[in-house]
Amino acid sequence: MIPALDLTHSDFVQQKLDLKTKPLGSLGKLEVLAKHLVLIYSQGMPKETMAAQLFSVENPSVSIFAGDHGIASEGVSIAPSEVTGQMVANFASGGAAICVLARQLGWRLNIVDCGILKPIQNSHVIDNRLGATTAPFHLQPAMSEAQLAQGFDNAKQLVAAELDMGCNLFAFGEMGIGNTTSAAAIFSALCSLKPKETVGQGTGVSQETVVKKQLLIEQALDLHQLDSNDPKQILQSVGGFEIVHMVGAMLAVAEAQKPILVDGFIATAAAMLAISMAPNAKQYMVFAHCSNEQGHKKMLEWLNVEPLLQLDMRLGEGSGAALALPIIQSALAIYNDMASFSQAQVTQVVG
Amino acid sequence: MIPALDLTHSDFVQQKLDLKTKPLGSLGKLEVLAKHLVLIYSQGMPKETMAAQLFSVENPSVSIFAGDHGIASEGVSIAPSEVTGQMVANFASGGAAICVLARQLGWRLNIVDCGILKPIQNSHVIDNRLGATTAPFHLQPAMSEAQLAQGFDNAKQLVAAELDMGCNLFAFGEMGIGNTTSAAAIFSALCSLKPKETVGQGTGVSQETVVKKQLLIEQALDLHQLDSNDPKQILQSVGGFEIVHMVGAMLAVAEAQKPILVDGFIATAAAMLAISMAPNAKQYMVFAHCSNEQGHKKMLEWLNVEPLLQLDMRLGEGSGAALALPIIQSALAIYNDMASFSQAQVTQVVG
Repeated sequence: MIPALDLTHSDFVQQKLDLKTKPLGSLGKLEVLAKHLVLIYSQGMPKETMAAQLFSVENPSVSIFAGDHGIASEGVSIAPSEVTGQMVANFASGGAAICVLARQLGWRLNIVDCGILKPIQNSHVIDNRLGATTAPFHLQPAMSEAQLAQGFDNAKQLVAAELDMGCNLFAFGEMGIGNTTSAAAIFSALCSLKPKETVGQGTGVSQETVVKKQLLIEQALDLHQLDSNDPKQILQSVGGFEIVHMVGAMLAVAEAQKPILVDGFIATAAAMLAISMAPNAKQYMVFAHCSNEQGHKKMLEWLNVEPLLQLDMRLGEGSGAALALPIIQSALAIYNDMASFSQAQVTQVVG
Repeated sequence: MIPALDLTHSDFVQQKLDLKTKPLGSLGKLEVLAKHLVLIYSQGMPKETMAAQLFSVENPSVSIFAGDHGIASEGVSIAPSEVTGQMVANFASGGAAICVLARQLGWRLNIVDCGILKPIQNSHVIDNRLGATTAPFHLQPAMSEAQLAQGFDNAKQLVAAELDMGCNLFAFGEMGIGNTTSAAAIFSALCSLKPKETVGQGTGVSQETVVKKQLLIEQALDLHQLDSNDPKQILQSVGGFEIVHMVGAMLAVAEAQKPILVDGFIATAAAMLAISMAPNAKQYMVFAHCSNEQGHKKMLEWLNVEPLLQLDMRLGEGSGAALALPIIQSALAIYNDMASFSQAQVTQVVG
């Protein structure tokens, strides 16, 4: 059960922002973000406590979920499925983009094997394997109901451990050769969109491969006869092990009433499923980056949300979410530390 | 004399980025930025030195130039000119938005009085006063040739002191009631655009005041008969003391072949003047943020540059540039620290 975001302190927060020494609203998205985060963090606080409180990001973590996809054997990516495991090893040894960004910006990194071809022998990798790969979803459901339930349970435990460590900002990234095809299928099924509208170039495939991705998704949609109002069926039928974990983790974070920083195309597919299962979850989400993957912009429009960044990236791994952390920290710093007109003895003028 | 950016190492840098463990180009603007900065920082290095070198931002500073405008007495802003000085005091006591962002993100802050109504008695404020206010530019030139020359000289000294301190990334912000009117006039004069195209709402003025701003600029353009190819004449006629300092500082940084992080509408007007005076200066500029001030987007299009951020801000003070620092640091970290395909033993595939 995810409670709606408590708006009790909304007027107080807005007024505090409006009395800062700047033209009204002139910090744009930074102000919107500050208000959103302060409302999340101040839920349930008595007015007096809240008014005296400073708010900050504590021990933020980015969890990278990796999974392999049966559909990948159809050649929907530039890379073979083996690259998923190679990249998991790269995450574990600190060489991937997300590792560099996490170190640079102050994220703690979790690496989670949700089901890749071969397990990695590395103590830095969390073993949450649901199998070696999903089934090819154009021929059969990607996973069983039991696998889906296990993935949700794994994710809940991971989030619980993070909460115990005092984490109050969660980002989720992914790695999985073939997973833009899965995400596009989810988007098509949830929003009743033709694959032509949801499929993009992923890692950089040819136009021919784009068409192949579209045909495979059409075949899957025909096969599974998915109900746009049944997100669990969609997830089980055309999802991925890493996507199941992301959906479960997002729901668990929202239930704990903490903010979720949503990354790119695949993470947003997971977010859409989470919202479809529990609409209040959306109120805890901050959308970090609009990816260059063509379907992502449409997803964000469909959700009616504005991302913080547009850096033309299309990497996954939580890289877009990672880059948004300083903006979140800056927004809270503005709320906490910026002087009001009266404190600074600046004439307050309103246009 | 500003040398063109040396492209000797261009292929090397591009190849190094292309061999990182990610789909080709999938870090988007981060890669473009990394290449740009590494080329700036590696100029003149022998190939071997360059190849082994890590590159990082050192001791970055944001300098806030403040100046008052004669044109402000016509009521072009929501605030009276006194607010410029009040905000300078707010900068000095650490309560303004830029102070909060600078502390949060790691900028050193310089506060420069370039000519505000009344000097501030505060040891944190650098005294570079060119007068108490510019002249109302719809009636006479904003400043004398001597004031302009003095401003350039001041700026050069400030940049020299910063270079001595090892600063290798420069941002410039401004504060000056009335200065969006001056920036719009500069934009109109440089690009032969009607004031209707260049004037926006500034701090948040009414539509009536927008029209007043347009009429004052039209009057000024009629009076001064500005030549779009004479940036010094434009700056002297319709500029501001803080804008003169920004132009001078940008030229000095470009001459030192260091990167300039360009902030919003007023900073970009200064950048356009600097580029008009020395076209090579543009090669050292990184555009940080597209402001909500309507003319700013047009300026960026005219310059054919893409800003890093669009956060709907319109505050000035260097706030947009300040927020871009972590992106710059992340871009360099990607270049320095991310593993190559061979280092990480990841299969290299190209779409």
